Amino acid sequence: MSKGLPKRSEDYSLWYNELVKKAGLAENSAVRGCMVIKPYGFAIWEKMQQSLDKMFKDTGHENAYFPLFVPKSLFEAEEKNAEGFAKECAIVTHYRLKNDPDKQGKLMVDPNAKLEEELIVRPTSEAVIWNTYKNWIQSYRDLPLLINQWANVVRWEMRTRLFLRTAEFLWQEGHTAHATKQEAIDETKQMLEVYAEFAENMMALPVVKGVKTESERFAGAEDTYCIEGLMQDGKALQAGTSHFLGQNFAQAFDVKFADKEGKLEHVWGTSWGVSTRLMGALIMTHSDDNGLVLPPKLAPIQVVIVPIYKGEEGLAKVTEKVNELKKQLTSNGISVKYDNRDAFRPGAKFAEWELKGVPLRIAVGERDLENGTVEISRRDIEDRKEAKKIVNMDNVLEEVQGLLNDIQDNLHTKALNFRVENTREVNSYEEFKEVLESKSGFISAHWDGTAETEEKIKQETKATIRCIPFDSKLEEGTCIYSGKPSKQRVLFAKAY
Amino acid sequence: MSKGLPKRSEDYSLWYNELVKKAGLAENSAVRGCMVIKPYGFAIWEKMQQSLDKMFKDTGHENAYFPLFVPKSLFEAEEKNAEGFAKECAIVTHYRLKNDPDKQGKLMVDPNAKLEEELIVRPTSEAVIWNTYKNWIQSYRDLPLLINQWANVVRWEMRTRLFLRTAEFLWQEGHTAHATKQEAIDETKQMLEVYAEFAENMMALPVVKGVKTESERFAGAEDTYCIEGLMQDGKALQAGTSHFLGQNFAQAFDVKFADKEGKLEHVWGTSWGVSTRLMGALIMTHSDDNGLVLPPKLAPIQVVIVPIYKGEEGLAKVTEKVNELKKQLTSNGISVKYDNRDAFRPGAKFAEWELKGVPLRIAVGERDLENGTVEISRRDIEDRKEAKKIVNMDNVLEEVQGLLNDIQDNLHTKALNFRVENTREVNSYEEFKEVLESKSGFISAHWDGTAETEEKIKQETKATIRCIPFDSKLEEGTCIYSGKPSKQRVLFAKAY
Repeated sequence: MSKGLPKRSEDYSLWYNELVKKAGLAENSAVRGCMVIKPYGFAIWEKMQQSLDKMFKDTGHENAYFPLFVPKSLFEAEEKNAEGFAKECAIVTHYRLKNDPDKQGKLMVDPNAKLEEELIVRPTSEAVIWNTYKNWIQSYRDLPLLINQWANVVRWEMRTRLFLRTAEFLWQEGHTAHATKQEAIDETKQMLEVYAEFAENMMALPVVKGVKTESERFAGAEDTYCIEGLMQDGKALQAGTSHFLGQNFAQAFDVKFADKEGKLEHVWGTSWGVSTRLMGALIMTHSDDNGLVLPPKLAPIQVVIVPIYKGEEGLAKVTEKVNELKKQLTSNGISVKYDNRDAFRPGAKFAEWELKGVPLRIAVGERDLENGTVEISRRDIEDRKEAKKIVNMDNVLEEVQGLLNDIQDNLHTKALNFRVENTREVNSYEEFKEVLESKSGFISAHWDGTAETEEKIKQETKATIRCIPFDSKLEEGTCIYSGKPSKQRVLFAKAY
Repeated sequence: MSKGLPKRSEDYSLWYNELVKKAGLAENSAVRGCMVIKPYGFAIWEKMQQSLDKMFKDTGHENAYFPLFVPKSLFEAEEKNAEGFAKECAIVTHYRLKNDPDKQGKLMVDPNAKLEEELIVRPTSEAVIWNTYKNWIQSYRDLPLLINQWANVVRWEMRTRLFLRTAEFLWQEGHTAHATKQEAIDETKQMLEVYAEFAENMMALPVVKGVKTESERFAGAEDTYCIEGLMQDGKALQAGTSHFLGQNFAQAFDVKFADKEGKLEHVWGTSWGVSTRLMGALIMTHSDDNGLVLPPKLAPIQVVIVPIYKGEEGLAKVTEKVNELKKQLTSNGISVKYDNRDAFRPGAKFAEWELKGVPLRIAVGERDLENGTVEISRRDIEDRKEAKKIVNMDNVLEEVQGLLNDIQDNLHTKALNFRVENTREVNSYEEFKEVLESKSGFISAHWDGTAETEEKIKQETKATIRCIPFDSKLEEGTCIYSGKPSKQRVLFAKAY
């Protein structure tokens, strides 16, 4: 099944594309830049959604739904935001097709059905949401407003890659309104913590938390906080962002509230989002040359059971035992698939579930029935012998629970070790370029704080400042590029 | 709180619109015909989604996600389907905005960014999905393919109403492919049963199951099955449809499979969907002049507890007891809201939760603490005295569980009685028009089976054939309009 999957060391990018397709996660569609998320890939996304949705609700947020379209006049109201997205917008101009008089059976856009005002397919929903909040907020009693939406958005990207950069993608976008600046900042930080916790705990993805430089900020934000992960090929991936919007959108859409003294003030805003891009991060953090590797907490199938048998009678005997096992595991909240397809041999099944990243595989043979044992194999260990273990039938539940926890931890540890090994402090531009060229990874270096230097380094090396980490300590230094004084190291990397 | 809500008897349509807005369910947006689904309304929709999603998965379906856009050439491939939706399509023609040279700070569509091929915002996804299935299906082993997607769709309606008919709406659309005609028909029927079970059991909405006439069929289907509910004003509402597509889309998109003998054949298809329209059905089945009435199984808040107290100390005493109660109810799976807002009086809170349709209200006063009692009031009984009950503190859980079940049943019974009372057999066109004029409701009548008669009746009376009920027995009769022979009664009504 994994035949045809290239090795990561040979062509990481090709390996990624092939893996996404072969593991049944997603594929390109007939629509330029838009993907089809296939059932297995969507099942992982659903697990992400459920987990995040609970975290949002536990922190007091409610879901709602706002329109797909943004009238041009609303879209352009917050100028920076509009400017940031104007070049990648899908625009609806007409609302009707008609029969093409020149081509039988074909349709054409009806020129008489031109919209008076063009509609932008939302690239993000600040405009349409803040225009709504104007009517929802009058008094301090209406605040805070803590709302999230799960939605599709469209950004007309020229170079697309499955999950990482697609014209249409799925995401959640939180949009909150507050009475004070401090409360909005606290919300921005809280949601970044939620994202970090989700990444570390559910995805087993270690992330650096920090703040973006001005040039990397969300268009229309005063500050953008982010979590950044490091992929196996040494490139960084921005996994989530949380924006402090200041009063920008409140001013653009005239959203004011009366405080306790009756004084009218503009409200303070935040927005925050993660998208199907997380799928790309998940894949590129854990997977190997044999296919996908999934952390148990996000695996749609945590355990696959493969029967080893001869003939119908053999299968029936094995199945009887497997059904017991399956029931026991399932009733303990473990998701189990019994692969009893007769048209495939065990080896082919092993390869398929390996490709699909199922954390644990249990093989149950006729001989096992006699011995009262099963063979459990874990997906996260590449050495096949080391990955296997013979387990007493009576201990399967306990073993499986232990192994699932162990795999979740092990994946996180491996990824964290990788990041630690691939985060390097450099003190000169020569060294910077050398490391970037030979090893890639995160580079911690001094920067003079100017957009000019940042831009020059980007042009010369393709590395960008991923963030100024929250835990970056103050230290005197000199900018690797300009030699000007700097008080703090920032984190550079090439990025997805 | 319910001030300003018109009476149903005075203006049903206005009552509906006002209720949707005042109960916090939805409102119109700045985008023509598109609605904002507000948090409380969305919470109800989420409960519907969860319940339906489980039913789909329990019947073997998986979720996936397909693109928002349909290239025009794919859209027009299945001609009947294309024709059916061509007049109500939002069409993307450009992919970039630019600064308007004539108006500072304004944007305009960049004429240089015209798409080579226009993209239709999906009004339904058969085209894009069948075009994908072509690559997923080669052999009988790939069948059946049982896929569902939750998505937004756009149909450019000229006259819109919140939930009932909006340009953008949320829905699920199932799309399945099968090796045999019979299997596809069975799937079509199975999904209609799923919808009917959901409507009856979760929404407390009695529905008639039946098949549409040819003129009312989904564009591109061979047969459309439907569930039809009767609203309080005597108008019918189509609550869900399940389509047997025959081989139409398989032919249009060239989807063939090799059967066991290796012979290539076109596959058989179905599609089925329900939408946010169900929210309208829910509202118009149960609600009253005081506001929304929700069946407990779909109520985001099943029990609201209102404290009756004087001063901070009084509130503290009541709260202590309420927290115990709340914990007990919550740990038994009941969703509880404790409304301890100090800025509102109990009367205002009662009215607000009545407007929002919370099934049970518990009032806990300082005197109750002495007596060891609480007052429980049920939302489904209009007579306020009759709705109330004094209950011993120790029996609250049991009472609440009993009452929630009772309300769920009572709402269904009331709605069913209403439908039975408002379903009338008529045997002449005079009688038909008379009943339609004076009483409305479902009318069971003989029809000659021609589209011509159906259309004439529609033009003259605005009544349409809602369906040919599955349980309509064969009986000799004459068409009320043409006098021609008929073998079966069909169900007419004016409809949403």
